[in-house]
Amino acid sequence: MPATILNFPPKIVENAIEEISKLPGIGRKTALRLVLYLLKQEKESTENLTTALTQLREDIQYCGTCHIISDTTDCTCRTVTRDLTTICVVQDTPDVMAIENTHQYKGLYHVLGGVISPIEGIGPEDLHIDSLFSRIEKSDPKVEEVILALSPTMEGDTTAFYITKKLKALGIKVTTIARGIPIGGELEYADEVTLGRSILTRTIYD
Amino acid sequence: MPATILNFPPKIVENAIEEISKLPGIGRKTALRLVLYLLKQEKESTENLTTALTQLREDIQYCGTCHIISDTTDCTCRTVTRDLTTICVVQDTPDVMAIENTHQYKGLYHVLGGVISPIEGIGPEDLHIDSLFSRIEKSDPKVEEVILALSPTMEGDTTAFYITKKLKALGIKVTTIARGIPIGGELEYADEVTLGRSILTRTIYD
Repeated sequence: MPATILNFPPKIVENAIEEISKLPGIGRKTALRLVLYLLKQEKESTENLTTALTQLREDIQYCGTCHIISDTTDCTCRTVTRDLTTICVVQDTPDVMAIENTHQYKGLYHVLGGVISPIEGIGPEDLHIDSLFSRIEKSDPKVEEVILALSPTMEGDTTAFYITKKLKALGIKVTTIARGIPIGGELEYADEVTLGRSILTRTIYD
Repeated sequence: MPATILNFPPKIVENAIEEISKLPGIGRKTALRLVLYLLKQEKESTENLTTALTQLREDIQYCGTCHIISDTTDCTCRTVTRDLTTICVVQDTPDVMAIENTHQYKGLYHVLGGVISPIEGIGPEDLHIDSLFSRIEKSDPKVEEVILALSPTMEGDTTAFYITKKLKALGIKVTTIARGIPIGGELEYADEVTLGRSILTRTIYD
């Protein structure tokens, strides 16, 4: 009797595995585990998940002012309970989350949506840089300080340099987050550039 | 000016993160990463994912004969191109996938849906054990061999013992998959029970 391969896993399962494993960091084995998990749960739990994902993709907005993801196009970035004279410029939304989690910053944000990268063909016009300038010009109360919180990469530095040059012409104070040895980091394992920079930008000990 | 927390992340994002992080092995950080990934993709990719998940949960069936997950209640387990005289008994669907991947087995399957576990209150009546016996009795061509491919745990062994006792009364040949040192495994790291058993069940070397 000739033996053929069982028509298994069924197409529906195969399809679900394929779609799930398209997500970053999720392989076929994990996808299969998730599929089997969902099959064992009540139908409701899958419904809740798909509804949340659909809403996420359909209803999400980007604030027209600060470009943070938001429920509305007019997010809470204009709230008077924040310090309206300071704008922190970040590359993307996760950076906003990271800074918010420190509870050390009470000003506004501006999400660029990326950094200038000639290699990837991303120029200033592809980012929310012009809107930063027009936002500052129109600001009331006047924006006094722009904090650049970009990654210390070549692209991040290029972007920071580009923005700084323009902002200085407008007479705005531009600062950047401190580079240095991380808290808990050990000197002997720090790379030379970071250590060298942390010496150059040393602060008064008090 | 009193500073308050920015209303961030928005409710829609928070909701999606919460639902995703309910999945096993996915924490809030991974969920956030997936959310941001989906937001950067075309709407279509989220649609494909949610459609696949909905279909998975709504349209999946379990074969009435072998209890494998299937597109229909009448799966390919009755195909004449498989060996209809052998049934491999497994605990759950992933085991079927694992065995199919070996390409060493061409018979039928029977998914128990679990193993007997007095601690968890799972008895033979909660599993597809009775349907195994009636399936064998009704089989045509007659089932000649039942291969037990259950996990070598106390629960797996209990289940195997229970099934074997009943099947032997029916005059069916019952076999179990070999226990021993895994291919590539080293003797000195093998546990005593496995090593001892592999000596007792040694096979002719040819």
